[in-house]
Amino acid sequence: MLQQSPRLTGICNQRRPGTVRCNCFHGSWQSKIVTVPTASSSYHQGFRWPRMGLRVWNAVLLVCLSFLLAPESMEAFLRPASAYPPLLQALQKGPLKVSLVGSGNWGTAVGKIVAANAKDSHIFNTDVRMWVFEEEVEGRKLTDWINNNHENRKYLPGFELPSNLRAVPSLTDACRDADLLVFVMPHQFIEKACRELKKAQLLPPHTRAISLIKGIGVRNGWPITLTHEIGSILDLPKPCILSGANVANDVAAENFAEATIGHPDGETETAALWQLLFDRPNFKINVLPDVDGVEVCGALKNVVALAGGFCEGMGQGTNTKAAILRLGVEEIKTFIMTFFGDLLADTLYDSAGYADVITTVFGGRNSKVAAEFVRQKGKGWDELEREMLNGQKLQGPATLELVADVIRANEVEHLFPLFMSTYRVAFEGADPQTILDVFRTKQPRSIQRSEDCVKLKVPTLVQDARNRIASRLRKLGRSISELTRNPLDAPSDNVASANHKTENSCPRN
Amino acid sequence: MLQQSPRLTGICNQRRPGTVRCNCFHGSWQSKIVTVPTASSSYHQGFRWPRMGLRVWNAVLLVCLSFLLAPESMEAFLRPASAYPPLLQALQKGPLKVSLVGSGNWGTAVGKIVAANAKDSHIFNTDVRMWVFEEEVEGRKLTDWINNNHENRKYLPGFELPSNLRAVPSLTDACRDADLLVFVMPHQFIEKACRELKKAQLLPPHTRAISLIKGIGVRNGWPITLTHEIGSILDLPKPCILSGANVANDVAAENFAEATIGHPDGETETAALWQLLFDRPNFKINVLPDVDGVEVCGALKNVVALAGGFCEGMGQGTNTKAAILRLGVEEIKTFIMTFFGDLLADTLYDSAGYADVITTVFGGRNSKVAAEFVRQKGKGWDELEREMLNGQKLQGPATLELVADVIRANEVEHLFPLFMSTYRVAFEGADPQTILDVFRTKQPRSIQRSEDCVKLKVPTLVQDARNRIASRLRKLGRSISELTRNPLDAPSDNVASANHKTENSCPRN
Repeated sequence: MLQQSPRLTGICNQRRPGTVRCNCFHGSWQSKIVTVPTASSSYHQGFRWPRMGLRVWNAVLLVCLSFLLAPESMEAFLRPASAYPPLLQALQKGPLKVSLVGSGNWGTAVGKIVAANAKDSHIFNTDVRMWVFEEEVEGRKLTDWINNNHENRKYLPGFELPSNLRAVPSLTDACRDADLLVFVMPHQFIEKACRELKKAQLLPPHTRAISLIKGIGVRNGWPITLTHEIGSILDLPKPCILSGANVANDVAAENFAEATIGHPDGETETAALWQLLFDRPNFKINVLPDVDGVEVCGALKNVVALAGGFCEGMGQGTNTKAAILRLGVEEIKTFIMTFFGDLLADTLYDSAGYADVITTVFGGRNSKVAAEFVRQKGKGWDELEREMLNGQKLQGPATLELVADVIRANEVEHLFPLFMSTYRVAFEGADPQTILDVFRTKQPRSIQRSEDCVKLKVPTLVQDARNRIASRLRKLGRSISELTRNPLDAPSDNVASANHKTENSCPRN
Repeated sequence: MLQQSPRLTGICNQRRPGTVRCNCFHGSWQSKIVTVPTASSSYHQGFRWPRMGLRVWNAVLLVCLSFLLAPESMEAFLRPASAYPPLLQALQKGPLKVSLVGSGNWGTAVGKIVAANAKDSHIFNTDVRMWVFEEEVEGRKLTDWINNNHENRKYLPGFELPSNLRAVPSLTDACRDADLLVFVMPHQFIEKACRELKKAQLLPPHTRAISLIKGIGVRNGWPITLTHEIGSILDLPKPCILSGANVANDVAAENFAEATIGHPDGETETAALWQLLFDRPNFKINVLPDVDGVEVCGALKNVVALAGGFCEGMGQGTNTKAAILRLGVEEIKTFIMTFFGDLLADTLYDSAGYADVITTVFGGRNSKVAAEFVRQKGKGWDELEREMLNGQKLQGPATLELVADVIRANEVEHLFPLFMSTYRVAFEGADPQTILDVFRTKQPRSIQRSEDCVKLKVPTLVQDARNRIASRLRKLGRSISELTRNPLDAPSDNVASANHKTENSCPRN
């Protein structure tokens, strides 16, 4: 077995040097050099970890070469999922143990779903642990409310929770030996919780995490996703992310909602297990191979919500809000492409994309508070938060500050006119009307040419239908030219179209 | 000069056999055979129309061959724009004459924009004619209100119109010698108006049209766009289309709004002129090479609005509405791909795509009436329209009927679960809850794999920024691995992140 090379550690700044992955601008290359078994390998005795035959100096050379070849690499370095024992291996030993880290409004709503799915499952352990920060509610402990009354009296009152959702006041007890970790807590606390878990050394090496947190970090002017943060502190493969148009109370009430799971390369199997854990008839999950895209959409939607709220406060109509929303999504796209690389169109079309931005702009608290920010000119964000949110936190302004930091640090203000003008209104006292100046130019916009446009693929199902229609037409000896006959040539009684039920009354607009 | 071949007319069912264009499934091919000058060629004496040297039998053979080679062609046949004299040729003789066909709520709002742009223009004639169906309003003629009081008292009361917008009660007088025709009227009347214009033979052959109408036709089970209808009846090149998130009164009030112009192949120059005619500081126009995509989005959004309205009526929250909206746009995509072929991602990202669907679902009259349809169970569409819309027309139910006709005629119900369930609720007395059954399955949704996803292109501007950032980092001797240093290795005081301002209070969700 190869030993850890100090030079490698120096170059990579990574926890374990065995495997290095660089995503450079124009694609990604992966250099799997050596895989070092972890100290806690007792967890997977039934699994023989493959030994790689490369010498250590070859490895060092390869890594150095990689850096020379891809000096502009802008992605965070995390070991690929293949360097960790697969989750399915744990499944061979019995149902997977699920722990939720967080028990707020959204955390409890998600706990309700997860516990319901785990109840009669052969895949997941029936006992679902949820870490609850202990506090007193109406004279009793919150864990007592959850475990005995099956209600989160403080954060999700009025909803009955499944009896197999168990509140645990200690973080380490809640997560000990967990196979699946669900992080659902305010992003401010994620680092502290992860460090505590890491220190306790209670997670098996095959553990997988998923983040349901909406937020983004910044370090030295560079954006860091929270999944990266969780993965790197806990030394787990890059976690998956779940995001979507999910107002917690509506989800708890079992109104229909959708969500998107984004997974990193090589974690399709893990994502399928996450899908089984979260998917319910009233909570449908789509899975996409794009963790950064899904995560950044979920974080930055709150910035767009602020801009939408400012427009609401100025008394603008839905036309203007729709324009804000369009440009907002455009800038989210640009942000992802600038700082993370590839983005899938499918991410934007899914629940984590447009659907979530829409829900947030039209019904979210960031939007509502931003509207009041304009109406009650002079009041600060903290004051409005206190007055309007009854203890809940506003994530938009904090995210906007981080986003503006990143944009300015990298001198790309010209790519983010909406985000930057929203920032100036939110923090520098600019007139809200200046947001509309982003759109209002005297020059027409540039014309988009065919070669600059992205053509969408025709899905197999649609292509099949097209082929079938065409072949049916051929069999009937008909062609589309006949179907779309020029009305000048066709007798009008052949025209079976409600469109052509010309009325006797004269045209009127 | 070649003569018209009767066989060609028989095959093509087209007005002029000279040029035939077929778009087959896997691309498009174009067979420009012969171009016949029109009877009204006196309009362009300064222009020498090129004579083509092909024999008539060659032409017949070529067209027959084309049909053999592309029997599955599913596109409407219209001559390509290059077969018509270019618009720029007319511009050489002086400013272009603009006529609006329609003067309702949206027509007058658009008339206000067009006349304002034409006022001090060297490109457009200052006198903008608007065809007004004459009627009496408060004891005076509507044309009199517009021409003397500069107000459309009936359809857009309270807004001052530019003095150069002239109401003309006769359709032929309004459109005589027009270089640019703007169609903006209810789709029921478009065929009659076009036939009247064609019969009068008063349009020069270089005339171009644009449609601002939201609707779709169906003939023999096949969807026909209104631009196709206008182009083929008037024998003009396929018109452009303008669509977007445009509530008429908000646009008239000069609240900010955006719109998309879709243009057919070969009409980029024409589209640029349309952009100049419509673009205002408060009404920004984007131009895309996708007329069918933009048009079908504009028509089918009203169907999605009905589904959204039903959810509103059932008391569902924004999560559910967002899911309806997502699937609605997905089915619009599928409809365009099935019946029209290619679709650009850019169309869906522009004002005519998501932005318009959002505005319509959240603020449109179709959505409002559909909500009442559910609440006041038993009332029909006509009754609700009369009670709620004060004379305005509801386009959603009519469009939904046409769409369902097309879907059933081509046996592709399985591709449109949302549209068909909306139809059953709207017209067959189905329980509105059945709309949600479209989403509610016990099986998880399928997992989307990388190879099935569409990667978005990185725009040049963004790529430039990325290169610049990377090179700056190199000059500083830094790399991204340093920026995203593992927090376990980095001293915490180096971490400049609001994300890491851990608070003293304990974690709480």
